[in-house]
Amino acid sequence: MITNQVKQKFIEIVGSENYFDSKTERLVYSYDATPNFQSMPDAVIVPSNKDDVASIVKLCNAYHIPIVPRGSGTNLCAGTCPTEGGLVIIFTRMNQILEIDEENLTVTVQPGVITQDLINAVEQRGLFYPPDPSSMKISTIGGNINENSGGLRGLKYGVTRDYVLALEAVLPNGDIIQTGGKLAKDVAGYDLTRLFVGSEGTLCVITEATLKLIPMPETKKTMLALYEDLEAAARTVSSIIANRIIPTTLEFLDQPTLEVVEDFAKIGLPTDVKAVLLIEQDGTADIVEHDMEKIRTICLKEQAKSVQIAKTTEEAAALTAARRAALSALARLKPTTILEDATVPRSEIAKMVKAINEIAEKYNVKICTFGHAGDGNLHPTVPTDARNEEEMERVEKAFEEIFARAIELGGTITGEHGVGVMKAPYLEWKLGSAGISAMKAIKEAFDPNNIMNPGKVFAKETRKRVVVSK
Amino acid sequence: MITNQVKQKFIEIVGSENYFDSKTERLVYSYDATPNFQSMPDAVIVPSNKDDVASIVKLCNAYHIPIVPRGSGTNLCAGTCPTEGGLVIIFTRMNQILEIDEENLTVTVQPGVITQDLINAVEQRGLFYPPDPSSMKISTIGGNINENSGGLRGLKYGVTRDYVLALEAVLPNGDIIQTGGKLAKDVAGYDLTRLFVGSEGTLCVITEATLKLIPMPETKKTMLALYEDLEAAARTVSSIIANRIIPTTLEFLDQPTLEVVEDFAKIGLPTDVKAVLLIEQDGTADIVEHDMEKIRTICLKEQAKSVQIAKTTEEAAALTAARRAALSALARLKPTTILEDATVPRSEIAKMVKAINEIAEKYNVKICTFGHAGDGNLHPTVPTDARNEEEMERVEKAFEEIFARAIELGGTITGEHGVGVMKAPYLEWKLGSAGISAMKAIKEAFDPNNIMNPGKVFAKETRKRVVVSK
Repeated sequence: MITNQVKQKFIEIVGSENYFDSKTERLVYSYDATPNFQSMPDAVIVPSNKDDVASIVKLCNAYHIPIVPRGSGTNLCAGTCPTEGGLVIIFTRMNQILEIDEENLTVTVQPGVITQDLINAVEQRGLFYPPDPSSMKISTIGGNINENSGGLRGLKYGVTRDYVLALEAVLPNGDIIQTGGKLAKDVAGYDLTRLFVGSEGTLCVITEATLKLIPMPETKKTMLALYEDLEAAARTVSSIIANRIIPTTLEFLDQPTLEVVEDFAKIGLPTDVKAVLLIEQDGTADIVEHDMEKIRTICLKEQAKSVQIAKTTEEAAALTAARRAALSALARLKPTTILEDATVPRSEIAKMVKAINEIAEKYNVKICTFGHAGDGNLHPTVPTDARNEEEMERVEKAFEEIFARAIELGGTITGEHGVGVMKAPYLEWKLGSAGISAMKAIKEAFDPNNIMNPGKVFAKETRKRVVVSK
Repeated sequence: MITNQVKQKFIEIVGSENYFDSKTERLVYSYDATPNFQSMPDAVIVPSNKDDVASIVKLCNAYHIPIVPRGSGTNLCAGTCPTEGGLVIIFTRMNQILEIDEENLTVTVQPGVITQDLINAVEQRGLFYPPDPSSMKISTIGGNINENSGGLRGLKYGVTRDYVLALEAVLPNGDIIQTGGKLAKDVAGYDLTRLFVGSEGTLCVITEATLKLIPMPETKKTMLALYEDLEAAARTVSSIIANRIIPTTLEFLDQPTLEVVEDFAKIGLPTDVKAVLLIEQDGTADIVEHDMEKIRTICLKEQAKSVQIAKTTEEAAALTAARRAALSALARLKPTTILEDATVPRSEIAKMVKAINEIAEKYNVKICTFGHAGDGNLHPTVPTDARNEEEMERVEKAFEEIFARAIELGGTITGEHGVGVMKAPYLEWKLGSAGISAMKAIKEAFDPNNIMNPGKVFAKETRKRVVVSK
């Protein structure tokens, strides 16, 4: 609850034109891209700089008002759903690229910059920002940092965390701190930069970031390998890496996903095979040529039905764009689409794909599986209907079993989507109670009043671990 | 103080053959590679597994006995000097390489493994572990992780932090936790893995680590560029990066360092020039050839006197080995050698080199400067004599001014050596009081009794900031 008196104080900070609390306006920020989660915030506020943010946070801390920092709300763990009400902070007035430093190969941005805009801006200078979440046309850098977003190029280039050099952040007590710098090396104290990356808005509000850039690769090539056997495709993934080749992208799409994506994108994807691998390599022309040839041989040796290399840049771009559109395409099937991101060591990807299909059969649910196979990061996706309670119960049981199986295989419950509300009940399966206690100790040290995105990461109750039949 | 009763409990855990408290034995562990710091521990203990470590830590927590986890003691910030007494834990019985996983490209090790042994073991399988601190022949992986060690290949490949995928660690309360996994992506909760890397033994005792490996580069070449002008050498560093080339190694040595290193290594290094850059590139033969040619052109354009490419692998290895021996060589000059690692954005390296020379003149101290110029990470080194109090005072003032200038240039007080005791009084210059408070909150949350390497990172008093004349 925000009283009228406190509301006036917020308005003093940002002006009445940047504070919203009508029912319609609150409704817009009551949900994110995660199905089945909705909760009304008390108000929405739009700061213009770090001092605004610090004043807002101080006020929230004094009055114990929950804060939900929000980019474009594309996250899939209900991480930006204001489950406990309070104040949603949005960054549409803090959306500037502040500097591209060509000597130090860095870019400094405000949190509201759209990921794709950043990527375009640096590519115009011949520089490269690798993290490319599928939502990058809409997502913000602030959101990417809070969730430690991955993407299609993660296999070779890593995730958002690997590119954050420095942060400016407002702590729950209102302190503004700077971490890191334009520095290749910095060991002055604990690595707060990387503690904040992926902390899902539960420790601080990020107000500025300096990101590492690398030289733009000279060229790239894209290949599609077609399989009649799911597990052969999965085995190929391990085989490529074991042969000491690290492609930029190594994506897996099963037949149900292919069908839906082709119906959406209409670019001539094969829909009569059991699975495809979408493989991209970048670098100098020589290396790309050499690696693609080696990859082709490995695919064929692992029983690929055929291997097609995109003939033009346009054809390659269309393939990648189609893959990026998988969620949008799948979302057209049924009223509700639940997409998860259980992740395993890449040597276990064949076992995981097999397990997902067995689990789908066991619970009689349709699961389309695609994802960043090279990272061991799969997206089993269920098109369903939240209104069908009986089916939803089976869907939930199927996902529980998928998480449990992933952990048995040495994996994790989430590779890139975050914990949020959605996966909080399963976090202890990965971390054990000692791991959860250690993380809670950090949370309580930073945020004793629990104002920063409360209800996220830490669950009130842990799910009982299901017993998985092997 | 460890009472006889508590001593018996330690002996019950590890056996009397693994617990030492004679004066001679304690003396051996009373100092590390940092000059001018010495303090006697109460005892030394050698655990054989994580359960031993957990039992030891629980006992120390119950009796408030300080713990200093120690690898080979090569660190340069007095991070393993038992300044508050207590128990030194050494890992000579936990020194096994447990697994090299060629499918997932990982290696799992105990903390006591020698860095060079790890590197050799994985290279035999055609795999590559890039972090290569100059002390790697002696240092342990546990020490490298605690200090987030850098090395000569950091420019292209990053530091220890970038290769730690998973940790097993004992927390101050005795809990054993596992963080991360053999996973390319994992966002299940806060990034404890990277919080622990570089935490200098103040948060936990690391008992096992899984490290990322990459395919071994096909080939490499090594070049020496000679300069008559210090700042021209420094400018070349920025220029190479700004030309979108990221060499593996980009080291700077000034004339005084060259002279000393040549006298030590006797490999025909030039000693009549003002500075040299030691540059290495690895990758496929084509890329190496192409980049070396481009780098040569840049060096000459920036007024290099000459550029020499090592003709044989042996010649290249001798150059790198000579660079790695710089500290040992400099240590022969005077009774005391103080080596620091102030770090700046690489665009500021010319200004920093200039500042170091001005500061040396101002305080009338000899400073030899060398270091990882590509990382902006310089090692100004003073050969001095700790018994000469008047000179030591000037040396300290010179270093204070170097730290201050580094921070003014957007840099940090330590790039790879850590804070330890040595730089604790300066940490606030980099982080501000809010940054220090945030870090202290984490420390207190994990270690309320302050048993884990007490007196490190956090200083009792912060040095007054010197005013630097520009």
